[in-house]
Amino acid sequence: MNPIRRLGLLGGGVIGAGWAARAVLNGIDAVICDPDPEAGRKVAEVIDNARRAWAGMTLAPLPRPGNWRIVRTPEAAVEAADFVQESLPEREEMKIHLLAQAERAMRDDVIIGSSTSGLLPTRLQSGLRHPGRFVVGHPFNPVYLMPLIEVCGGAATSAATKTQAAAFYRSLGMRPLILRKEIDGFIADRLMEALWREALWLIHDDVASAEEIDDAMRFGPGLRWAFMGTFLIYRIAGGEPGMRHFMAQFGPSLKWPWTKLMDVPELDDALLEKIVAQSDAQAGATGIREYERLRDQCLVAIMQALKTQDYAAGAVLAQHERALWSAQGRAAAAAEIAAPLRLFGGTVEPAWIDYNGHMTESRYLQVFSHASDAMLALIGAGTDYVARGHSYYTAETHIRHLHELPPGAAYDVTTQILGADTKRLHIWQVLHRTADAAPAATCEQMLLHVDAKAGKTCPALPEVQEKIDPILAAHAALQWPADAGRAIRRVPTP
Amino acid sequence: MNPIRRLGLLGGGVIGAGWAARAVLNGIDAVICDPDPEAGRKVAEVIDNARRAWAGMTLAPLPRPGNWRIVRTPEAAVEAADFVQESLPEREEMKIHLLAQAERAMRDDVIIGSSTSGLLPTRLQSGLRHPGRFVVGHPFNPVYLMPLIEVCGGAATSAATKTQAAAFYRSLGMRPLILRKEIDGFIADRLMEALWREALWLIHDDVASAEEIDDAMRFGPGLRWAFMGTFLIYRIAGGEPGMRHFMAQFGPSLKWPWTKLMDVPELDDALLEKIVAQSDAQAGATGIREYERLRDQCLVAIMQALKTQDYAAGAVLAQHERALWSAQGRAAAAAEIAAPLRLFGGTVEPAWIDYNGHMTESRYLQVFSHASDAMLALIGAGTDYVARGHSYYTAETHIRHLHELPPGAAYDVTTQILGADTKRLHIWQVLHRTADAAPAATCEQMLLHVDAKAGKTCPALPEVQEKIDPILAAHAALQWPADAGRAIRRVPTP
Repeated sequence: MNPIRRLGLLGGGVIGAGWAARAVLNGIDAVICDPDPEAGRKVAEVIDNARRAWAGMTLAPLPRPGNWRIVRTPEAAVEAADFVQESLPEREEMKIHLLAQAERAMRDDVIIGSSTSGLLPTRLQSGLRHPGRFVVGHPFNPVYLMPLIEVCGGAATSAATKTQAAAFYRSLGMRPLILRKEIDGFIADRLMEALWREALWLIHDDVASAEEIDDAMRFGPGLRWAFMGTFLIYRIAGGEPGMRHFMAQFGPSLKWPWTKLMDVPELDDALLEKIVAQSDAQAGATGIREYERLRDQCLVAIMQALKTQDYAAGAVLAQHERALWSAQGRAAAAAEIAAPLRLFGGTVEPAWIDYNGHMTESRYLQVFSHASDAMLALIGAGTDYVARGHSYYTAETHIRHLHELPPGAAYDVTTQILGADTKRLHIWQVLHRTADAAPAATCEQMLLHVDAKAGKTCPALPEVQEKIDPILAAHAALQWPADAGRAIRRVPTP
Repeated sequence: MNPIRRLGLLGGGVIGAGWAARAVLNGIDAVICDPDPEAGRKVAEVIDNARRAWAGMTLAPLPRPGNWRIVRTPEAAVEAADFVQESLPEREEMKIHLLAQAERAMRDDVIIGSSTSGLLPTRLQSGLRHPGRFVVGHPFNPVYLMPLIEVCGGAATSAATKTQAAAFYRSLGMRPLILRKEIDGFIADRLMEALWREALWLIHDDVASAEEIDDAMRFGPGLRWAFMGTFLIYRIAGGEPGMRHFMAQFGPSLKWPWTKLMDVPELDDALLEKIVAQSDAQAGATGIREYERLRDQCLVAIMQALKTQDYAAGAVLAQHERALWSAQGRAAAAAEIAAPLRLFGGTVEPAWIDYNGHMTESRYLQVFSHASDAMLALIGAGTDYVARGHSYYTAETHIRHLHELPPGAAYDVTTQILGADTKRLHIWQVLHRTADAAPAATCEQMLLHVDAKAGKTCPALPEVQEKIDPILAAHAALQWPADAGRAIRRVPTP
């Protein structure tokens, strides 16, 4: 297949515009046929959303963006295209008609993908002169972010068309799933539809509201489905004895009235054996304990991620953390100030490990920064103080790395106040490997007290100064750290 | 309700042990009745998993862990308990019998929660002397991480019992969903079961394998269900016209053969109005555009989170990033070396913003660290070099903050080589606000060349030295930065 430089798009609605965005971000031009006079504005909005999302998603360097434009005829969209994607409304007759019209203007070697959610490719390709080059490539909304694309051929689709379409979708960052059999709704939509139909019964019967049903998903099974499907999740639930054990425990529930949707498959020996064999093949050589850990790490990572949005399970975590912090706040108020303050510690998280196999440098500063926050809370300059318009900003930081930290290592941080006046706070922090109290890194910082709104330094409020003074006096009696106040030395010219 | 200091647990399997872990981590003692002679070992393993997961999940200070032990009789588990949770196998008769036995040893004010996945509370409470204090509290596996707990009362359950049980579960960091009506399977399991039954049909009919079905979920709809349920996702898909428009478009598909599960609800006007009204109530005053952005931010955050595990959608993202980096690598090889190297840039991500409203300090070091990596790749000391056992480690870092960076701001980093010998690399980096080229921060670093296995410094390999030399020579002609080689100055004693 030739390199794809231009994508011809039939239909510029939510899905078509999503295709344009994914193409443009990956350096591919898009020509979109849509009769809506507002199409240009709408596509531009979707591309803006996509650009914002990708800027937040990846630090990897994106290619120069592709160009895009709206045209009024299918012919104009496809005539110089290297790949054509159809995203018209789900009306079979209309799709068949427009595909045939577009085909007459296309080069012979160009593949046509259809975004249909569930219409059968054998029918959609029925009006084409070259049906072998037609395939369903069913994406999910938003197309510019969701990885899945279901690739489903019809009776006349060639094997090469499926392979080449999958390769193109993969080059855009997507995850093709090639179907082995043609079926209405393909796979994902059949699963979504089953759940949806049961959900409609729950509303119909006044068992739950739309919001309650959504909550039952997003705080529960939905969290797991973001990274493992129902079979692997059930396999893990079965524990060491695996899938056969799970099916023995929960197979009988197929006969229970747990859905209103009837016509349930008979769980005979043949079906049981098939499920067990497929589950074994899926799990491969990885044991249940490993999968358990992976599941937990993924759940943790997702809840932390959602915490950055203060939404769904992330909001639940954030609320629990606030409760834990305020319990600690009550304890910190009684902290010992004669020694360097020991207000913060934890363990090195797996996500903090860089390609050298130990804690990456920016996480050192993150840990020191959390320890500073605990010290600021202690002197009454915590988040409440910030909300009232004042804060301490970091002006300078000097970090010295003394030991590496492996994943899982426990650490704690001490903070010594080296000096302070009304506007400045000069601190010295040591990150200790808790196991042997060895210093793993030191951090010297100069913090400046600011009026955040005015954007300039100003004296700390008296209630903060009153809390700094006794600590400053107590810490004046401590030894001055030998390495404080140092600069990085020049390498002599060889 | 009295503060809950001790949780009595009937059953120490996967679910009971998960309860013990959640309690212990939140400072609550657990007494677990389980006849399995291996119960102690198994519970200890689950608590270890939970401890590891929580250490990775939160920087918030956990209370001193609760104690736990295994006992052999229900009476011993519940006699001094402040709350009792039953997690026995799903056999109704056995549950009824053991609950009645345990009740005789409990204080009268203690609530009994049942972890049943779907048995009816009215039947489970039928053998109790005080059925009013019995309620279902249905958790999800792993109990120590999953937020959802379905709270479902039976006919005899008091309103106070439901409220107090929900408050207790919430204090453990969970998200209670109080059911308005008793139903087999409650809500989440009915939805899971509908999807599962359809999935079994797909296997039965050889449409897809267990692995393919799981992939269709985790790369597709499962990613969205981790934070928004099916109703809100569909509402957003409907665009500005909202839920009524979506139902008009997709309502007819209820009649299509998109599941094998029959007995589908009739979408008459009454049901349609109910759905639309409930969806409006759920969405509240938040507009579709806002929900779209929230959806995108959550998807991005989840994919980034899964990238830390190199799993599921995260592995897809990582692979695409590698392709983008290697395309850039080909461009970097031709980089201009006469000026400070400009190898890295991006935009400030929303997740990087701290409580002061701008980019948090550790993210500055992360950005500088990425720029160093790009420089190391340029001199042939990138990840391939690391894989062969050598690397550059950061020994010292001095950061100076000059300007704040708001969310979304574009930045780029220049890197100047100040000095180098066979083991040392002294660099000067400037992070620029791209819009006006103003320096927002500077970073001076000393990197040491190491033999990673031996854990000590050693000379860089000749092929790397050969690439450093011409850059070092070219940069010797550049101006020495005025602020390089500086130390943090002492605050004079007031």
